[in-house]
Amino acid sequence: MDKYIKIYEETRKKLKAYGYMMWLMSWDRETEAPKASLAYSAKQFSVIQEELYKIESDPEYMESIEKLYENIDQLENHDFKVEIKQAFKDLRMIKKVPKEEYLAYGLLTQEGPHIWAEAKEKNDFEMFRPTLEKIVDFNKKLVKYLETDELKGYDVLLDMYEEGFGVKEYDLFFNTVKEDLAPFVLEVTKIKHRFSRKLTKGLFPKDGQIKFAKYLIDVFNYDKNKGVLKESAHPFTSGVSSVDTRITTKYHEDNLASSIFSTIHEMGHAIYELQNDEKYDDTMLHGGTSLGIHESESRMYENMIGRSYAFWKIHYPKLVEIFPKQLNHITLEEFYRFINRSERSLIRIEADELTYALHVLVRYELEKQLISGKLKVRDLPKRWNGMMSKYVGKRPATDKEGVLQDIHWSFGSFGYFPTYALGSAYAAQIYDAMNKEINIEEAILNNQISLINEWLKEHVHRFGKSKTPKEILMFATKQEFDPSYYVNYLKRKFSE
Amino acid sequence: MDKYIKIYEETRKKLKAYGYMMWLMSWDRETEAPKASLAYSAKQFSVIQEELYKIESDPEYMESIEKLYENIDQLENHDFKVEIKQAFKDLRMIKKVPKEEYLAYGLLTQEGPHIWAEAKEKNDFEMFRPTLEKIVDFNKKLVKYLETDELKGYDVLLDMYEEGFGVKEYDLFFNTVKEDLAPFVLEVTKIKHRFSRKLTKGLFPKDGQIKFAKYLIDVFNYDKNKGVLKESAHPFTSGVSSVDTRITTKYHEDNLASSIFSTIHEMGHAIYELQNDEKYDDTMLHGGTSLGIHESESRMYENMIGRSYAFWKIHYPKLVEIFPKQLNHITLEEFYRFINRSERSLIRIEADELTYALHVLVRYELEKQLISGKLKVRDLPKRWNGMMSKYVGKRPATDKEGVLQDIHWSFGSFGYFPTYALGSAYAAQIYDAMNKEINIEEAILNNQISLINEWLKEHVHRFGKSKTPKEILMFATKQEFDPSYYVNYLKRKFSE
Repeated sequence: MDKYIKIYEETRKKLKAYGYMMWLMSWDRETEAPKASLAYSAKQFSVIQEELYKIESDPEYMESIEKLYENIDQLENHDFKVEIKQAFKDLRMIKKVPKEEYLAYGLLTQEGPHIWAEAKEKNDFEMFRPTLEKIVDFNKKLVKYLETDELKGYDVLLDMYEEGFGVKEYDLFFNTVKEDLAPFVLEVTKIKHRFSRKLTKGLFPKDGQIKFAKYLIDVFNYDKNKGVLKESAHPFTSGVSSVDTRITTKYHEDNLASSIFSTIHEMGHAIYELQNDEKYDDTMLHGGTSLGIHESESRMYENMIGRSYAFWKIHYPKLVEIFPKQLNHITLEEFYRFINRSERSLIRIEADELTYALHVLVRYELEKQLISGKLKVRDLPKRWNGMMSKYVGKRPATDKEGVLQDIHWSFGSFGYFPTYALGSAYAAQIYDAMNKEINIEEAILNNQISLINEWLKEHVHRFGKSKTPKEILMFATKQEFDPSYYVNYLKRKFSE
Repeated sequence: MDKYIKIYEETRKKLKAYGYMMWLMSWDRETEAPKASLAYSAKQFSVIQEELYKIESDPEYMESIEKLYENIDQLENHDFKVEIKQAFKDLRMIKKVPKEEYLAYGLLTQEGPHIWAEAKEKNDFEMFRPTLEKIVDFNKKLVKYLETDELKGYDVLLDMYEEGFGVKEYDLFFNTVKEDLAPFVLEVTKIKHRFSRKLTKGLFPKDGQIKFAKYLIDVFNYDKNKGVLKESAHPFTSGVSSVDTRITTKYHEDNLASSIFSTIHEMGHAIYELQNDEKYDDTMLHGGTSLGIHESESRMYENMIGRSYAFWKIHYPKLVEIFPKQLNHITLEEFYRFINRSERSLIRIEADELTYALHVLVRYELEKQLISGKLKVRDLPKRWNGMMSKYVGKRPATDKEGVLQDIHWSFGSFGYFPTYALGSAYAAQIYDAMNKEINIEEAILNNQISLINEWLKEHVHRFGKSKTPKEILMFATKQEFDPSYYVNYLKRKFSE
């Protein structure tokens, strides 16, 4: 066993270093790399990816994982066992997917986001279609390669992002949302609220928004020595260790709320990874345990903390100080209602807390159909628009604000979107458990978000990938997943 | 031969990709990586470096280079021959330097700049001393490992940066400078000029300086699709291909000229590499052929173009527009004299065009003594201060403005500084040749620096590393290196 452990650990060191390089390259490409250099850097990326593949598919390494897995009961360290289980699961990719297809797909999803970005800018779905078709085709093949007795079809992809959640579980969850939440949403979004033109049509210069974003970094205790705030086309978090997790935002001068809440959202993701136990930095257990749990943190920070009345009671004066002309005559109450208004909208990332799950539902249904083959990529824009009408009650006029709005499919993420809705539901349940131990509202009012960070570190963050989503939920909330916390939270908040 | 060519080309592809990754990592470390992450990223860097070393020292690859070198006359392509000659030369490093020492040194010089930066900030030479001692020791050993019949001692290091230039050549060059230029410099720096307090004590907010830097990017045609302008502790250029060459600057609110001329200087470096023939991107011939030639371009752009009267005649109004309060009552003439004033100063990168070579002379003499063993690192601060008094006529009061001012030794560059002075001399000679074919002053006055870029592309830039410095000089100026152009240019300009 010692021999296999040694091989595993030596290889892991290399995998971490290659992973680091590829992480950095992606970060650079998304935030700063000169436009004309993208093809050149993609070429270098594919060479490194091929080297990485050689390391991952080295027979000695694969044998070590198999031997360690066969004798897993002999391993004493819990975390190491978890690593070996995951490594064994990941071996499927190497053993079952032909190398050329795997590498070609890597290149495709490296270039995808740039093709998507141009297509979106030009509102030209046809420009993106061939790439998306290849990505969907690969995912359909991937499903066939990886199917087991337990996991079939779309479940193969869903399980990659949220262990233990397949079509059966998601259908149940989304049915609860549809039956219990949807009628309430229709009721609430019927009411039209009126807000001052200064809020809806005012201009908020980027300089001021940057200033406020920096202020938020301090409020949330996002450690500047371990993070970076930058700009990109689509806000995201990019983490590599407990000492380096970076975020981006995007400033819209005609939309004050956009950068504020995307910054808080991404800080939620980042604080999760920065609060992983540092002992995981050199292992494969650093990071979030699943996308659902990851999203629970970002949504809790964004919606349950960042959009709370208590939060703005103490931070609104700072915002007014930065934008006096625009906000001097807007009361705290009006601002609070403005950032919590609910309406039927087209863009997911700008959708409000209440309607958000319905946007995700559309993507979930479409992915199910794409992967099963019931829907062709060429019919996607039409089907998208139809579903938006049906579930969200609003029909996109252009693909830019329809099927082209999200970056995710362009880098190959299928089975990913549903975790977004799940994350909000987890968040409500975790928040409720935390609130039994600390007074969250008081912490916010005392500008002590560090108390919240600490509770989450202790109950969720520090474990990294060493616990499954279900284990995390049980540890933090002392019970199984229960979506009623989510529905109740939303009903309570939006009944006001 | 075909077999060897194939091995060489396959390996080169990998070397380019690894080089790219390491380049990006350095760029990130110097400009953006969170402080707390530096140790972690250094660890990943060393793993990759070890992988790279394996590729470079692969027996099959080394054999290929040796065979190709032995049969170099059979190769038809000129550029390929140059590559093979260089690869053969580089083999020395692998064959003669023990692997562990080579890797340890790589790590040392990766961490060096961060230790240096802290030591400089704290004005604490002792903090940097142990690192510098290790770096000097390694370079002394390196000299022993690499000595040949032709190259001995310090020459081994000098030749790495400027092929064909050793102590003999540099001594001659610096003697010319000392004998012909130094008395003139002493004469000129005796005169004290007085400038408006608005220029010497005024505050120039960073925002405005950034605005003007962006304006300069357009004036010089530095292609934004192939470049980035960012900030770092010490301005530098970082290039990886003809489609990606990035620069940094540093803004000092109490020093308007600093960021202006460092930006122009770095653009000179960047335009050189961006104007390399793109066919070299996938070969080892991309980049500047030597540091001297590289520096000739940056100094020509900075001093001969950027500090010319013609340049400010058309661009000064823009600067006044950005800083009206500070500059409204400063005439073009006063501003021109201000940016071309000459005085005895302590900081090399802030030294003026006239005294610059004397700062380099100090470093050249010290390096010669360090490498020969005549000087110990612990005595360096004292010797530095003594030489500054002797050659520049001014004695540093602190190490921060003395021996700790430059980053270069911290990443192991010995033999590098002398090329800086050589660069200015090359620049004067190349400028003279160019001026015979195009009217440079007129091009500047017509805001057509692109004409200058084009001439330099045709005569210098496009060749990358495919010609030696001496070949470049002969091609561009039709004659051997002649330092009198430099001395005459300075005398003419500063006699005004």
